Amino acid sequence: MNGARFSAIYRVRCDASAIDARARAIATEQSVEMPLSAIDDESILRDIAGAVDSIDDLGQDLFEIRIGLSIATVGGDAGQLLNMAYGNTSLHEDVVLHDLVLPDALEEAFGGPCCGLPGLRERLGLPERAFTCSALKPQGLPPDRLAELAERFALGGIDFVKDDHGITDQAYARFAERVPAIAAAVRRAVTVSGHATRYVPNLSGDLGQMQRQLCIVRDEGLEAALVSPMLAGVATLRALVRDWPDIIFFAHPTLGGAARISPDLLFGKLFRLFGADAVIFPHFGGRFGYSAETCRRLARNAMAPNPRLRASVPVAAGGMTAERVPEILDFYGRDVMLLLGGSLLQARERLTDVTLAFTESVAHYPRGHDDG
Amino acid sequence: MNGARFSAIYRVRCDASAIDARARAIATEQSVEMPLSAIDDESILRDIAGAVDSIDDLGQDLFEIRIGLSIATVGGDAGQLLNMAYGNTSLHEDVVLHDLVLPDALEEAFGGPCCGLPGLRERLGLPERAFTCSALKPQGLPPDRLAELAERFALGGIDFVKDDHGITDQAYARFAERVPAIAAAVRRAVTVSGHATRYVPNLSGDLGQMQRQLCIVRDEGLEAALVSPMLAGVATLRALVRDWPDIIFFAHPTLGGAARISPDLLFGKLFRLFGADAVIFPHFGGRFGYSAETCRRLARNAMAPNPRLRASVPVAAGGMTAERVPEILDFYGRDVMLLLGGSLLQARERLTDVTLAFTESVAHYPRGHDDG
Repeated sequence: MNGARFSAIYRVRCDASAIDARARAIATEQSVEMPLSAIDDESILRDIAGAVDSIDDLGQDLFEIRIGLSIATVGGDAGQLLNMAYGNTSLHEDVVLHDLVLPDALEEAFGGPCCGLPGLRERLGLPERAFTCSALKPQGLPPDRLAELAERFALGGIDFVKDDHGITDQAYARFAERVPAIAAAVRRAVTVSGHATRYVPNLSGDLGQMQRQLCIVRDEGLEAALVSPMLAGVATLRALVRDWPDIIFFAHPTLGGAARISPDLLFGKLFRLFGADAVIFPHFGGRFGYSAETCRRLARNAMAPNPRLRASVPVAAGGMTAERVPEILDFYGRDVMLLLGGSLLQARERLTDVTLAFTESVAHYPRGHDDG
Repeated sequence: MNGARFSAIYRVRCDASAIDARARAIATEQSVEMPLSAIDDESILRDIAGAVDSIDDLGQDLFEIRIGLSIATVGGDAGQLLNMAYGNTSLHEDVVLHDLVLPDALEEAFGGPCCGLPGLRERLGLPERAFTCSALKPQGLPPDRLAELAERFALGGIDFVKDDHGITDQAYARFAERVPAIAAAVRRAVTVSGHATRYVPNLSGDLGQMQRQLCIVRDEGLEAALVSPMLAGVATLRALVRDWPDIIFFAHPTLGGAARISPDLLFGKLFRLFGADAVIFPHFGGRFGYSAETCRRLARNAMAPNPRLRASVPVAAGGMTAERVPEILDFYGRDVMLLLGGSLLQARERLTDVTLAFTESVAHYPRGHDDG
């Protein structure tokens, strides 16, 4: 048996007198899940049972505990990593999975993005500036209307235009009709704009359905796709990354229940580990309540130098406006993608113009900042 | 466009002065996800945009809001139902998805369990009493040791013996070696005990890997399998139920983060809707903090009479002991499965005896209750 460990760091709200027992209980729950007294195999007690490495009192009945868990139990399966790190413990209301510290071997086993930030910079021929992205909405529109929107976004020089994550394979916009229609519209626009806008269709359903959707993506000559790992299962993301190494995968945070798993861990670290090239998350000050500090840590996790994992592109989204471009780029630097959806769509007939203003303010940053 | 709706019921902690705007924001977030002012298509505003149906003040800054959402947006995809009901809103810390009220058409589209409670009663030839189940643990044991445990459980007359949900396809107990070894051990025991114990292997990885695992399950003549829908993705569960209608699927609650989605909704109602024949959940008074009321509602949801959906078997688990059998059966009645793991394994060399005592106390209930 291999005794190598990874560390799971939890934040537990509990009475000081109970924290020692609580930490031991979590270590057991997340490993052997049975009374240690009932285990007679020494190698399991030594190598497999979780161990409490440290307990820090953060004050006000909040504790940070660090548990060592066996990497042999993960077996190279993405779902199983989440299962071991937080499976049953997620059912306790007072425990948040705060962070994971993974040994090199585990990072190598998963391997991270195939393309990632460096691949995106190379494929798009954009060595320096931030990337831009928008979203096709609202759901309910038929394929021709979505295609028309995509065309206008592309005429505005956007880098990526993605399906809203709610656009799946509904009767009013079947994947097999929608994706070719939108792809054709974007191709038309690109011949006009001269800028290689990429359309990012949203994958949905089970793995088999997603594989068939990716055949359409490939047949249309598209290079990217959107997946929701917490809906689809993280093992589904891994399987897609493994089978489609040339596709740029965007990960959507939906159902991330991020208050229970730290967003910087789940979106910044784990989605990257499992192979997302770009990870979408709500930037602070928009529709969601993330703090600046959470967003900073998330972006840092997505891009932390790592010889085993390509960086993922942090995609700041969630109620952004074009006016905020300089502020957001001041905050993240240029290694970021900005995703504006509703605020561009609100311009209605002026959509191409406001998209152009958005893409130019990103292209000309920091000049636009100094001017404006 | 079809204007039919389902209802999502949320509990929101918020200031009374803000709840109206908050409810409208959730209705928009979970449907069109863009400013309504930017939508010019009347049919989308009428049929697709979410509508606030009611807001109830529960006191102490807690509100229950009911939002009508379009069933056309779901498109028959299990993942998409969760996406529409709670996707982005799960990222808000102060909103819990409390319940869903689904129209008949949506229930028919998903279809629920193939076997369910009535099928289990028929296949096992057990028209009346509660079912019994135990778990193979700890992970780290090699296949022969797991097989030995399974054999002893089977000699104790247990109905089902399942893999621990942490036992997947690790190097020390590969699925392809473990499952045949355990299946053979259980077959041996059954010839001795005369009771048809069923082994329930745990599926893991992506859908393709699970399909290959189920081929082994079938080849071994096994009838049941365990799946973790929140790890695998609910669409993965649906695909398995569709492709393997003869398999009895147990659903494990791991990663259910049940404090954010009501457990009675997620495990009792949705896992049933998506086809789990038996749903495992932590019974109150064990290792997890669920209330009696939560467990009662969960079991009620799993079994509520429904002409479109077979009932799922509620499987009470999570730190139960044999002494509690009468109390638990008093609470649930006989339409339940009792899952005892660690408390039986703690008996070590007396495992078969204590399993026998457990299975007999269930078989003889309520007599054992009156006697004891």
